[in-house]
Amino acid sequence: MAGRRITMADVARQAGVSRTAVSFVLGNRHDMRISAQTRERVMLAAQELGYRPNLTARGLRTSVTGTIGLVSDTIATTPFAGEVIHGALDSATTRGQVLFIAETEGDPATEAEVVAGLLDRQVDGLVYATMYTREVTPPPSLRGRPLVFLNCLVEGFGAPTVIPDEHAAGRTAARALLEAGHRDGVHVLGGHHVTARTPAGALAGHERMQGILEAFDEAGACPPVVTECAWEPDEGYEHLRAILRSNTGDRLPTALICCNDRLALGAYQALQEAGLSVPDNMSVVSFDDSFLSSWLRPPLSSVALPHYDLGRTAVELLLAGDLAPVTHRIPMPLRTRSSIAPRS
Amino acid sequence: MAGRRITMADVARQAGVSRTAVSFVLGNRHDMRISAQTRERVMLAAQELGYRPNLTARGLRTSVTGTIGLVSDTIATTPFAGEVIHGALDSATTRGQVLFIAETEGDPATEAEVVAGLLDRQVDGLVYATMYTREVTPPPSLRGRPLVFLNCLVEGFGAPTVIPDEHAAGRTAARALLEAGHRDGVHVLGGHHVTARTPAGALAGHERMQGILEAFDEAGACPPVVTECAWEPDEGYEHLRAILRSNTGDRLPTALICCNDRLALGAYQALQEAGLSVPDNMSVVSFDDSFLSSWLRPPLSSVALPHYDLGRTAVELLLAGDLAPVTHRIPMPLRTRSSIAPRS
Repeated sequence: MAGRRITMADVARQAGVSRTAVSFVLGNRHDMRISAQTRERVMLAAQELGYRPNLTARGLRTSVTGTIGLVSDTIATTPFAGEVIHGALDSATTRGQVLFIAETEGDPATEAEVVAGLLDRQVDGLVYATMYTREVTPPPSLRGRPLVFLNCLVEGFGAPTVIPDEHAAGRTAARALLEAGHRDGVHVLGGHHVTARTPAGALAGHERMQGILEAFDEAGACPPVVTECAWEPDEGYEHLRAILRSNTGDRLPTALICCNDRLALGAYQALQEAGLSVPDNMSVVSFDDSFLSSWLRPPLSSVALPHYDLGRTAVELLLAGDLAPVTHRIPMPLRTRSSIAPRS
Repeated sequence: MAGRRITMADVARQAGVSRTAVSFVLGNRHDMRISAQTRERVMLAAQELGYRPNLTARGLRTSVTGTIGLVSDTIATTPFAGEVIHGALDSATTRGQVLFIAETEGDPATEAEVVAGLLDRQVDGLVYATMYTREVTPPPSLRGRPLVFLNCLVEGFGAPTVIPDEHAAGRTAARALLEAGHRDGVHVLGGHHVTARTPAGALAGHERMQGILEAFDEAGACPPVVTECAWEPDEGYEHLRAILRSNTGDRLPTALICCNDRLALGAYQALQEAGLSVPDNMSVVSFDDSFLSSWLRPPLSSVALPHYDLGRTAVELLLAGDLAPVTHRIPMPLRTRSSIAPRS
């Protein structure tokens, strides 16, 4: 029998009961009276033969295929966001669900194709995710489906959204410096994340900046000096070099908020080149808590993007049927390492 | 009709033909004679109504579900290997296939569960992948299935294997230095990758080292000095510091082969601390071509892990039914940046 699928008919033969009885027992149906003895014989036979349900058939009958679709632009192929999938997988696997992962690479035609493909396969529900937090317009075919939005903002779809609490994260980063006594001489590198793709800035940029400025304002401290640039290592390097050249002596910054860890890598390179040491000459705090933050010397204190929790929460909401159109903000904790020193 | 699935019966009504005729046309079957006119009417009606095949049902009938399973230990959740999924997805999407991605986190019980889950869903074929190249023992339930191994070595399963050509990569790295005149004073940082998990070294370590030593031997150059350590930034930093302390003056190395980019990051940190510059005081070549290699200052020449091509090739072999038990070695090209200078 090697290679052939064990069917309910095989189980019925082995148990000496009808095919219908097997179907009712293994389908966990209670609308027909089955004796405890029969139930036990069926379960035993199924176990002995190694019977496994044909979920494709079950999906057709009950519309519960045990499958969740995760549609994303570039999550699976993005170095930093793999933990989103990790969280989603853990949550799905715990409940015996399999996760369909499909990527669109941000192309609307591919997205339409992929979403149709998932609906064709009758997934029980979908998580619609983006790599970075932004406003999106999902395909209309998703309307009315069990759906959770992950890391994106959607108008008028009536589904819950799970996003990182970037605004609170901005306050957290600022407070880490304020509590170390850095009430002036603080620079922010990165700003609102204005790029060709996000000419008005990115949502994370706006919320992080808002949180930072609020915290300094509430503390009655000097507002930090903000340098707007792309959030990449070379930009961090070039802009900090320029800052160090034009702010010497007493005007040298004493603390730096980098809007992400990539900027911090570039900033470290500029500081090392200038013979300045972290944290003795300059305290640094950052965002994302990517692996870079523990690889830098000295290791970098960084406010963590909660990738795992984002993925886990989205799938949990979906499986719990908790689909009210609410925005769930996931906390971003500070990972304290060795890059902040008290203001001397 | 919003929200309701368009069925073959709807198409038949619209086209004014029998349900059976629709089934034969849309199922692309040729064992019944259907006039060209009827075929056209059916296709037109299907298009007008927005009919989409119920692939779950089609999978049951023909065992072609349009679905491929990708089982891996930690590929989807590993920062560097996302491109494997990217390649696999591109290849699958091009052929109208959907990719089921399932992760085991290296746990045999989870693996058995996940593989059974995929087989229950009647995937047409599977790619069985590991994050780093190693020998594995897949679950017996995979025997006889359409199967391709990705990045792993398996005995006696009768399926093709797709792995990076690490041996040739070692020769490529060595030759990059030899051609720049570095025929002595070369150190290798990393070695065979002996860790708690790989006490006899990792396969990539063995093959890279073999290629490196062969190339130096064939060129009649001095064999490089090898430092065995874990392939992590802090190990690269600590070991290069020790090398620089104990090899001063004329004995200072002139070139360094780092067994991966993470080691190179640590090596750069040690060099910068010692006031030595790349490539003027020391040439550096590395492996992996991760994003780190372009972020370092100066950018690092690195032999690329062909993640995208690995994923793409595995799915292509599977879809082409090219399943002879052959080992396909994917080339690892050198990405030349600015870290190698001619020997002075």
